[in-house]
Amino acid sequence: MLTPESFACGQWIAPGAGAQQIIGPVTGTPIARAGDAALDFAAMLEWAKTRGGPALREITFHQRAKMLKALAGYLDSRKEELYALNPMTGATRRDGWVDIDGGIGTMFLFASKGRREMPEGQVYIDGEIEQLSRNGTFLGQHIAVPLQGVAVHINAFNFPVWGMLEKMAPALLAGMPCIVKPATQTCYLTEACFRMIVESGILPEGAVQLIIGRTGDLLDRLGAQDVVAFTGSADTAMKLRGNHNLLRNSVRFTSEQDSLNAAILGPDAAPDSPEFDLFVKEALAEITTKAGQKCTAMRRLIVPRAQLDAVAQALAAKLEDVKIGDPADKATRMGALASLDQKADVQAKLAQLKAEARVICGDTAPDGPGAFLAPTLLACDDPDGAQAVHEIEAFGPVSTLMPYDDTAHAARLANAGGGSLVASLFSHDAGVARDVTLASAAHHGRLYIMNRDSADEATGHGSPLPHMIHGGPGRAGGGEELGGVRGVLHYMQRTAIQGSPDMLSAITGTWVKGSAEKTGPKHPFQRTFREIEIGETIHTDTRTVSLDDIEHFAHFTGDTFYAHMDEAAARANPFFPGRVAHGYLLLSFAAGLFVQPDPGPVLANTGLNGLSFQKPVSPGDSVAVRLTCKRKTGRTDSYGEVAWNATLTNQDGEQVAEYELLTMVAYDRP
Amino acid sequence: MLTPESFACGQWIAPGAGAQQIIGPVTGTPIARAGDAALDFAAMLEWAKTRGGPALREITFHQRAKMLKALAGYLDSRKEELYALNPMTGATRRDGWVDIDGGIGTMFLFASKGRREMPEGQVYIDGEIEQLSRNGTFLGQHIAVPLQGVAVHINAFNFPVWGMLEKMAPALLAGMPCIVKPATQTCYLTEACFRMIVESGILPEGAVQLIIGRTGDLLDRLGAQDVVAFTGSADTAMKLRGNHNLLRNSVRFTSEQDSLNAAILGPDAAPDSPEFDLFVKEALAEITTKAGQKCTAMRRLIVPRAQLDAVAQALAAKLEDVKIGDPADKATRMGALASLDQKADVQAKLAQLKAEARVICGDTAPDGPGAFLAPTLLACDDPDGAQAVHEIEAFGPVSTLMPYDDTAHAARLANAGGGSLVASLFSHDAGVARDVTLASAAHHGRLYIMNRDSADEATGHGSPLPHMIHGGPGRAGGGEELGGVRGVLHYMQRTAIQGSPDMLSAITGTWVKGSAEKTGPKHPFQRTFREIEIGETIHTDTRTVSLDDIEHFAHFTGDTFYAHMDEAAARANPFFPGRVAHGYLLLSFAAGLFVQPDPGPVLANTGLNGLSFQKPVSPGDSVAVRLTCKRKTGRTDSYGEVAWNATLTNQDGEQVAEYELLTMVAYDRP
Repeated sequence: MLTPESFACGQWIAPGAGAQQIIGPVTGTPIARAGDAALDFAAMLEWAKTRGGPALREITFHQRAKMLKALAGYLDSRKEELYALNPMTGATRRDGWVDIDGGIGTMFLFASKGRREMPEGQVYIDGEIEQLSRNGTFLGQHIAVPLQGVAVHINAFNFPVWGMLEKMAPALLAGMPCIVKPATQTCYLTEACFRMIVESGILPEGAVQLIIGRTGDLLDRLGAQDVVAFTGSADTAMKLRGNHNLLRNSVRFTSEQDSLNAAILGPDAAPDSPEFDLFVKEALAEITTKAGQKCTAMRRLIVPRAQLDAVAQALAAKLEDVKIGDPADKATRMGALASLDQKADVQAKLAQLKAEARVICGDTAPDGPGAFLAPTLLACDDPDGAQAVHEIEAFGPVSTLMPYDDTAHAARLANAGGGSLVASLFSHDAGVARDVTLASAAHHGRLYIMNRDSADEATGHGSPLPHMIHGGPGRAGGGEELGGVRGVLHYMQRTAIQGSPDMLSAITGTWVKGSAEKTGPKHPFQRTFREIEIGETIHTDTRTVSLDDIEHFAHFTGDTFYAHMDEAAARANPFFPGRVAHGYLLLSFAAGLFVQPDPGPVLANTGLNGLSFQKPVSPGDSVAVRLTCKRKTGRTDSYGEVAWNATLTNQDGEQVAEYELLTMVAYDRP
Repeated sequence: MLTPESFACGQWIAPGAGAQQIIGPVTGTPIARAGDAALDFAAMLEWAKTRGGPALREITFHQRAKMLKALAGYLDSRKEELYALNPMTGATRRDGWVDIDGGIGTMFLFASKGRREMPEGQVYIDGEIEQLSRNGTFLGQHIAVPLQGVAVHINAFNFPVWGMLEKMAPALLAGMPCIVKPATQTCYLTEACFRMIVESGILPEGAVQLIIGRTGDLLDRLGAQDVVAFTGSADTAMKLRGNHNLLRNSVRFTSEQDSLNAAILGPDAAPDSPEFDLFVKEALAEITTKAGQKCTAMRRLIVPRAQLDAVAQALAAKLEDVKIGDPADKATRMGALASLDQKADVQAKLAQLKAEARVICGDTAPDGPGAFLAPTLLACDDPDGAQAVHEIEAFGPVSTLMPYDDTAHAARLANAGGGSLVASLFSHDAGVARDVTLASAAHHGRLYIMNRDSADEATGHGSPLPHMIHGGPGRAGGGEELGGVRGVLHYMQRTAIQGSPDMLSAITGTWVKGSAEKTGPKHPFQRTFREIEIGETIHTDTRTVSLDDIEHFAHFTGDTFYAHMDEAAARANPFFPGRVAHGYLLLSFAAGLFVQPDPGPVLANTGLNGLSFQKPVSPGDSVAVRLTCKRKTGRTDSYGEVAWNATLTNQDGEQVAEYELLTMVAYDRP
């Protein structure tokens, strides 16, 4: 008998006398005792806020990302221990892959996004500088900083590992401590993974805590700096989101609820098309993976009226072949539902659906003590008149076919679910994809478009990827998680900063145009990454651009565009006063002006951003460059990226071009 | 007696028999009758959804932006009619400027942002392509599309014009129809402006409707595609956000509530410093503008303990000089509160505050019938022990001074408000600015940093600018509006799209790498903006880069960086196999390869984005270019911007560089 423990204020706390028995869905016998631990929720919040929060906020996004990478690596090295427990939840190894490897992969991805897309600092820069004044002495910049409270994560029973890790990774990356509350039915698997996190010793004290059992008065104790992220049923979500304290304090509440996700077979996808086969194959996977207990599963299969019978036949044939049984048995294709309660609930919902839909196959339960159900396909012939098929979700291996007449009708039916996590379209027709998207994207958090071109690499209708947002409007909860940095920002406050350039530079750690320039003791190309300071600037000598230079460059490069070569034609162009220098000639001369040629810490020019040619340069004009260190970002163990703001000005001091120059610079002198 | 009317389903609807009398705050006598119109809220929603929504969604962001620009221009031309009504609300002309010119300016700004920062299409592209697969056949892209419901805007009494326009502009730009519900006390001014909008004939039918009076069962009829944006008191917000129907359907609810905004005088700002004077001047403006009835007003003045008396003295001297009276009189500095009820409410709150704070000046009301109150300054000597000063807002010309010991203490006091719209810091010390930001940005929607450098151009602590977000956590409502495109996205659904490159190109109207290339009938530089198709591509000839080319380029440009010139030194560099070509040489040769030199519709290369040098090019290597039309954006009446994706490949087909090339192209042949 497993006895998963809570982890509060740095201590493991065993179940109490009133702990509940967890009945295994495979055998129908008790497998664990959980809950009723003596938890002091006020103390847990205080622990997180006074230890975990400050420790996480003290380090940079990159340091947090490295921590996540190490943690994901640690979990990966011990994942077989989790796979050993996995069949107890009713899940096959394949089901477990989505949960266990999927969760670890999500943490790895956030580690990678944190390094690549977030700054090496404590302040995230959101968007560009806003020019709030004519002379640039008063500017605006949006930033994001970690909330100073606690992230409370309330998870569903179906993904005990992924559910924890997909919420924890972005919260920790943001710099917020977490309190995790898994669903009791499968909490022993969550606890096993959580225990590894603690044993890894990688996270600072107070960064994560675990509640096995009820949350008591936890939500009543939250404030404006806290976040609640919930995954589960609409009913539970409704109860939580209506909590008076959460409403009164405007506590952020994100909800990701089961929804009646749709899959549309395109009008172009006849039974002999690759898309038809892909549709049947994916519907099979969606109905049977995790015994259909996925918030993203296809609940409604919307197909051209003429194809309904063909789809029904093809899919039923495959569903009837599905081997159901002990999830630990390798031959098993589909395991058990998560619990006997869950099985009873699915059967009750099925009864309601059958009032509007006929059974194509399934709707049977094997004899025996476990929570097994045959995969079940229904067909609803009048989906416009029906209601239950769009509103009632049997959270198990159940899906309903319905016919449509044209793509607008198909989109209307997909939207009739009242908001969903994902809808998919199986079509090779780009026009259909665009029409369906415009008609229905507003109703779905994700649109998955599948066809022969993407089939080999596509990740599946039902798989939320950490790169893409997960959540959806209306019935899906109106929330959003994941989506790379978007998911991290859910744990941060976006704040508009207004002030002078110097103030914005100091706050963002990035040189803002108009702030003070610094002069280094030598040419910046001879300074190491560590030595170069934000704001360090050189002003170069001046170089005159002659007509000979322009002609020479034109013939050398082959760029004989008339604006450089033909005075009359150039004059006729609305942008030019006559023949002008090539933009690339200016860029090249600029490099000639600012480059220090000797070997030194600056290793390479790796690129350039936001180049804008602002004023033509005519023969006889001269140019000079200002080059200022704007931003520094560590990249490897030996070098980092230094971004420079470069401006070119002419003999009258007018700016003619601006860009951001990217260089790689060694931390130390070679 | 004014009788402002509702506008529903295209009809003006007069007040009903049970309309309420509005008492003017200046004279204390009735000035208008409003409300109790016979409104069918179900029909209004249907009207918006079936007429306004489809008409707005049918056009592009740029077309909506042009519409906003025309509308703002129209209102600007008739604004004196609004200024004529303005004094009836108790506001001076200067107060009215924030409301009337401020509202029109906000609409102009959204028109401009829509043109510059949103695409010429119906789908907004959110972020970069996500590489979800190794071979690039399955990609991700976040997009945003307009919600298909109705935006319900519930506004406060203090900004009858700005309040309407600042919510309407982003909603219309997003493509959502609006139903506006102003506060009854000042609804006649909102109605006058709304009537101009209708009379302009610029908006499509059903795009805007107006409710004068109660909202009845409107909120109970909203669904997941609708949005409620509220500005007003925390109590009303609590009642609305707890609406069962809104919660059940996850209806988006944005709340912007009055909060106890703080202003911190920096530790560096001694009485003889410019920042001290700026602080006193701005506190004076914040207490008296709109008679202190601004959700952003400074309610708490947090100053170094040693400066409390000096600030109290300097500020009191100015407050005592403020001329209060008829807002229509040019000599008046401060007008009336919005209503007699409001005056009574402020006096009641003042009584509560005085339990914790002493009166420095004010706390008197002139004799007479109007809603006049003297500007009132309090001082709370123990702000750590106090509660009311951080929680109770007297929504009038009232502010409380409190002392702090160090910047951490100042930030703690600012944060004690439990979340605010804005906090400001008056300091010339960049370190202080950074410390205060890290300690308190999470608690405030906006941080306004003021000092001598920005003083001439700064727009004020209390002014929400349309570029910057407006809203804040906790007591401020947990919402967000404005902030440029951010504010538009509140009326749109963000959806993750997954599929093959061709599908993403069709949906976004932007060429995605990996999608089909098209061949035009001639060189794209000889095709007009209208003719060039998304995906139109040329593959150039190949050019070999010789050592002579590199040497020649180095000496011509002056860029003799060792990686190009010195074989041994280049080899020692971790990025290079030996001497390599300059990146700018490659760029220049690329232009030589793809440019068509004759006069034609392509007018100029205006810039370049995201240039990345991915692989070194050694002497003897050759390069070729693929140039593909990625995106088209109209810019003026005669030309638009065409963005091209350019890749350079070497003789082995390996990609060595990639960038986005920006050109201006004439709509028609010259």
